[in-house]
Amino acid sequence: MRLNQLGETKVIQIIKRIAYRRRSDVLVSIGDDACVLRDGTVITTDSYLDKVHFDLSYMSFQDIGKKVACATLSDIAAMAARPIGLFIALLVPPETRRKSLVSLYQGIDEICRMFSVEIAGGDIVASEKLAMTLTALGKTKRPILRSTAQPGDYLYITGKLGLAETGRLILKLGMRDAECGIGVLSKKNFLIPTSEIKKAVQRHIAPIPRIFEAQKIVRYATSMIDTSDGLSTDAFHLAAESKVKIKIFADSLPISNITTYIVKSAKGGLRLPLSDFVYNAGEDYELLFTTRKELPFNRILGTEITRIGIVEKGSGVWIIEKGKTKRLSPKGYDHLR
Amino acid sequence: MRLNQLGETKVIQIIKRIAYRRRSDVLVSIGDDACVLRDGTVITTDSYLDKVHFDLSYMSFQDIGKKVACATLSDIAAMAARPIGLFIALLVPPETRRKSLVSLYQGIDEICRMFSVEIAGGDIVASEKLAMTLTALGKTKRPILRSTAQPGDYLYITGKLGLAETGRLILKLGMRDAECGIGVLSKKNFLIPTSEIKKAVQRHIAPIPRIFEAQKIVRYATSMIDTSDGLSTDAFHLAAESKVKIKIFADSLPISNITTYIVKSAKGGLRLPLSDFVYNAGEDYELLFTTRKELPFNRILGTEITRIGIVEKGSGVWIIEKGKTKRLSPKGYDHLR
Repeated sequence: MRLNQLGETKVIQIIKRIAYRRRSDVLVSIGDDACVLRDGTVITTDSYLDKVHFDLSYMSFQDIGKKVACATLSDIAAMAARPIGLFIALLVPPETRRKSLVSLYQGIDEICRMFSVEIAGGDIVASEKLAMTLTALGKTKRPILRSTAQPGDYLYITGKLGLAETGRLILKLGMRDAECGIGVLSKKNFLIPTSEIKKAVQRHIAPIPRIFEAQKIVRYATSMIDTSDGLSTDAFHLAAESKVKIKIFADSLPISNITTYIVKSAKGGLRLPLSDFVYNAGEDYELLFTTRKELPFNRILGTEITRIGIVEKGSGVWIIEKGKTKRLSPKGYDHLR
Repeated sequence: MRLNQLGETKVIQIIKRIAYRRRSDVLVSIGDDACVLRDGTVITTDSYLDKVHFDLSYMSFQDIGKKVACATLSDIAAMAARPIGLFIALLVPPETRRKSLVSLYQGIDEICRMFSVEIAGGDIVASEKLAMTLTALGKTKRPILRSTAQPGDYLYITGKLGLAETGRLILKLGMRDAECGIGVLSKKNFLIPTSEIKKAVQRHIAPIPRIFEAQKIVRYATSMIDTSDGLSTDAFHLAAESKVKIKIFADSLPISNITTYIVKSAKGGLRLPLSDFVYNAGEDYELLFTTRKELPFNRILGTEITRIGIVEKGSGVWIIEKGKTKRLSPKGYDHLR
């Protein structure tokens, strides 16, 4: 059996069986957004590859730096921890220019500055293609796990669903103006305000991690995950780890007008239902979390918080759309298929 | 200017200038074997690539797992810390067999078991070539840094110099038996005992990190580094970070007979002086450290400890060979040239 036949979830299960739990000071190990030690230390590691997680063909080195820093720190946010240090293991073509390297690290440090994080170490190795592994270290007094949602809880999400993928499409397709007609997005004769277009592109390039929002949510949250692989996959993880059923109300999902436009209208649209797009679009790096009670606010520091579902006894993720309940299979990004 | 023109040391200096020191709880940042936090948390990250750090053409997946785990934990040893957790970010060709993946992680876990370390997290991404970034987390009450050697100190090293590179050559050349004649090493008609050959090969495949040795050394050590890039480069780092001169006595260097044989005799030898080989051979993952006083032992847990030099006021690394003192330039492995 080969890894692409097994898929990411099975492969992680295989690794989990080999990785023997031998330390009592490791509270949370493989299977959550990050590892948590008894002393509150939180640690997470993520790899990023050209053409998979970023694209040198339409992103600058500085943009790539911002993106990978945001994505890595998002796992620290998902544990409701405060980040401290970031470590960058860089695989880099040796003929890369000094200027590009500087831009990359400036992009990373720009995000670090927002959260008083320090680039505190790393490694550098020559390689054919640009790739990076970032490790973030943080601290928390009360980690919020994936495995602690309970029947009766409410399900919430921060920000807009599918916004980052919308931004990616704008950037990617925008390069081929005439052919796909998405070029009009940047022109004045278009109904969607430029600010919305910018927001979508920004969510793709610099999905600012919800660190501060998580600090406000921590008092209420019973479980939490960040949405990196798409709602269907991330909600599936939450349900599976907590051993509960999650029901999502399709009508309540927060979707930006720009997303609707890109999927439905722009030069014939994407030829897939809007719902399929928002269920499976990845890299939003928003917080998907459950609470015991209804939240007394619907916005934190400018970020909207939307109630999108409930937790029940059972298993799997279910979507209620036009009065019908159907199972939502994890069809988000699988890194091995 | 391109990175291969700058070289690794310059590139790290450039990164160090961008990585702004903004946290008082980060005691040791870029420039040592690992980062150290005020609370004693130690963290290090290292990348490994096929054909650079390991070689699938003559190493099994299990061997590769052992090697990368050893190499990463060696940085924890170099800080005189106790390791706790290991995190594996894997870039893997998706057509890799399940069996190979299992062997890889079993290799990693075999080394973890020796030191009660837990594989506590990671990431997995499809990629053309096998590559890995390992992050190790540890704790120490008293980290031993690279920057604290003082004039008057003695310089020591654990194990044998160049033994890992000797092992690599045996494995690599041994595959082409007839051509290079090194195949005789595995036959009985050879003077070097099989046990020495095995030791060299083992030091290449599984350079067991000197974790326990470091715990004994910590009482005496004033500064420490692990030898990953070769004595000339690693001693250079120690001297530069401590702002001292290091003098090494060529006659005192611990060199195994098998190394001498491979360099000088085996089918014409390597056509380079033995000294050049042992000064620059990398990946020994031994401890190079300084002490205020002479050590009261020359062996810890079976590992030999050899005094090889002294620390003086000044700068650079100098070698005393046949009565002459000459500067030893860092000619060990540069990952960007």
